[in-house]
Amino acid sequence: MTEHAAYIYLDHAATSWPKPDSVIDAVAETMRLYSANPGRGSHAMAVQASRILFNGRKQLAKLLNIANPNDIAFTHNTTMGLNMAIKGFVKPGDHVITSSIEHNSVRRPLYNLEQKGIEVTYIDADERGNYNLDQLKASMKSNTTLVVVNHSSNLLGTIMPIKEISEIVHQHDAKLLVDGAQSVGIIPIDVQQLGIDMLAFPGHKGLLGPQGTGALYISPEIDLQPLMQGGTGSQSEAPHQPLVRPDRYEAGTQNTAGIAGLTAGVAYIQKQGVDQIYRHEWELSQRLLEGLMGIDGVQCLGPALGEPRTGIVSFYVPHIDPSEMAFILDQHYHIAVRSGFHCTPTAHAAAGTNERGAVRASVGVQTTVKDIDALVFAVKEIIEQY
Amino acid sequence: MTEHAAYIYLDHAATSWPKPDSVIDAVAETMRLYSANPGRGSHAMAVQASRILFNGRKQLAKLLNIANPNDIAFTHNTTMGLNMAIKGFVKPGDHVITSSIEHNSVRRPLYNLEQKGIEVTYIDADERGNYNLDQLKASMKSNTTLVVVNHSSNLLGTIMPIKEISEIVHQHDAKLLVDGAQSVGIIPIDVQQLGIDMLAFPGHKGLLGPQGTGALYISPEIDLQPLMQGGTGSQSEAPHQPLVRPDRYEAGTQNTAGIAGLTAGVAYIQKQGVDQIYRHEWELSQRLLEGLMGIDGVQCLGPALGEPRTGIVSFYVPHIDPSEMAFILDQHYHIAVRSGFHCTPTAHAAAGTNERGAVRASVGVQTTVKDIDALVFAVKEIIEQY
Repeated sequence: MTEHAAYIYLDHAATSWPKPDSVIDAVAETMRLYSANPGRGSHAMAVQASRILFNGRKQLAKLLNIANPNDIAFTHNTTMGLNMAIKGFVKPGDHVITSSIEHNSVRRPLYNLEQKGIEVTYIDADERGNYNLDQLKASMKSNTTLVVVNHSSNLLGTIMPIKEISEIVHQHDAKLLVDGAQSVGIIPIDVQQLGIDMLAFPGHKGLLGPQGTGALYISPEIDLQPLMQGGTGSQSEAPHQPLVRPDRYEAGTQNTAGIAGLTAGVAYIQKQGVDQIYRHEWELSQRLLEGLMGIDGVQCLGPALGEPRTGIVSFYVPHIDPSEMAFILDQHYHIAVRSGFHCTPTAHAAAGTNERGAVRASVGVQTTVKDIDALVFAVKEIIEQY
Repeated sequence: MTEHAAYIYLDHAATSWPKPDSVIDAVAETMRLYSANPGRGSHAMAVQASRILFNGRKQLAKLLNIANPNDIAFTHNTTMGLNMAIKGFVKPGDHVITSSIEHNSVRRPLYNLEQKGIEVTYIDADERGNYNLDQLKASMKSNTTLVVVNHSSNLLGTIMPIKEISEIVHQHDAKLLVDGAQSVGIIPIDVQQLGIDMLAFPGHKGLLGPQGTGALYISPEIDLQPLMQGGTGSQSEAPHQPLVRPDRYEAGTQNTAGIAGLTAGVAYIQKQGVDQIYRHEWELSQRLLEGLMGIDGVQCLGPALGEPRTGIVSFYVPHIDPSEMAFILDQHYHIAVRSGFHCTPTAHAAAGTNERGAVRASVGVQTTVKDIDALVFAVKEIIEQY
């Protein structure tokens, strides 16, 4: 893995690569110059570290139209944000609604609550991943407090009707938690306009930041119990976690350098424009879809040609194991894709691929038409020579 | 904060700085070359990312004499490790023992459990931070399942008698959780010889790695419930968190580049030798202690001259507010120290400084005699001119 020029990376739904130089430089510079402990010191470096965190929050708030940057808590990853949101919100006796095509980062915490007696309803998706709004309406109960949904399926690329979901949710005085793992930095998001009450998202996917970063937006209307307690540098004398945000949800040392990198990633995508990024990735997904559909024996998952979707195109070839396809693509064509179940077995069940899994190609902001054509060419050649 | 040559950093107990070039280079190189998602792909970069995590685990296991690297889970920070250990272990009806001089990263999660009916006993420390082993013996009950203690006080520098504590704990069939925030990479640690059952520690302090890294060692004898559930790249079809380690405790994307940096930090300190580092930092602490004790009006906290301690020396001057002292040191002398309560109000209570707080100077592997002398000179001058 030294000749990166020849490497075609189509696994952006797992993590984005390459990172912009500005992201790498921000991480390295912060480690070199300002790696003090934010909020924990009285000296210049610690003040600078605090500023890095505050600036990151401000840029994220701007990107997502969040009124108060302090309603954003930094997290280790999306999974941590989702665990914080789900476990800090749901109380005994609550009813929770989610969908049948969630990632394990939602499914597993909810299953954990189910084991403790919480009732969870799973809204069906059709085989293209379309959300069933009527079923949602019919499933809302007097004790439904939380609805959890991914903004875009990490297997199918389908985009969920967040605005319509949030309207139903709010008509019933419940709250909406959105898993933005595949949408933040990829689909334009206005948290207030869409009516999102909590949004968990990664720093290292659409936002092009480093791994080890992520965030959770928590509406000021929600009194979320923190999942963890610890030092916050504030109200040190109190035995309980301080109520002030973001400290309440950020126990222990934060990833200052990582957040500096994340902030540089946000600046990079803001410069491109998320609407432009969406269009770019959609066009590439259409080219890929058309190319793959033109090959005998390839079955594509997710929305039909011409429909909205994120840059995820999963497919399979009935007589070729997805992991073998991915292996050949990697070894012989230097094309990185992902095979298997993508941490979302129930989405595979919806798509009818729960027995075999699928190959997932996912594009990013730097993916080119040439990359797409190389994948289509390679898949065609593999099938012909198999 | 650009002229770092003139900057004297004595806040290593908050986070170490400067980081070795090898640490910064490892982070940047990993972001540049291998930032795929470990355990989530079938392609070369993802395999390389998995290798980075495995190698990091291996080096940590070697450093701490942990038999199986897979018993180490990476965390966001020490606080996350402590929350995982405490909340995943303690069950209703359990009795927990801790000390009165813990950091808020231990005190606050335990207070949270107390609010839920868990009984917690606090072992006293004397004003120098010495642990009361007799009180521990007398406090062990038939339902005592967990004893939590910091290896070294983050305010006083006192080193706790871990071996003696673990013997008492194990005589009563309980388990010992050690907060290694101020000891890992600073005091030689042999987890097996010391009888530590769980050890939470940071990547960014004594190990010289980046912020956003840390780890929790969990003895294979402990069936710890995970604090979070999510995607692990393994057993995707299971609705529950996989039982296999380390996956069970590492939900979501890990901080690959950060762990590469942490591994470089471990290599750096292994080359120096932790016993050498301890001696270096102890000698500096003695010089600082002697220097400060020679100034009229300075009161030093923690162990007496000649006693074992980590490189933390906290002090106060009765008529000067600690935050003012720290501010002047920073602004006029370019010396970074920390003032306030250091997230450990009860340790201040033990030391008798709970009303005023203290100034904490803490040395690191790159601290020199010149740095120490500069601090002593500055404190003397500030007092004379006050």
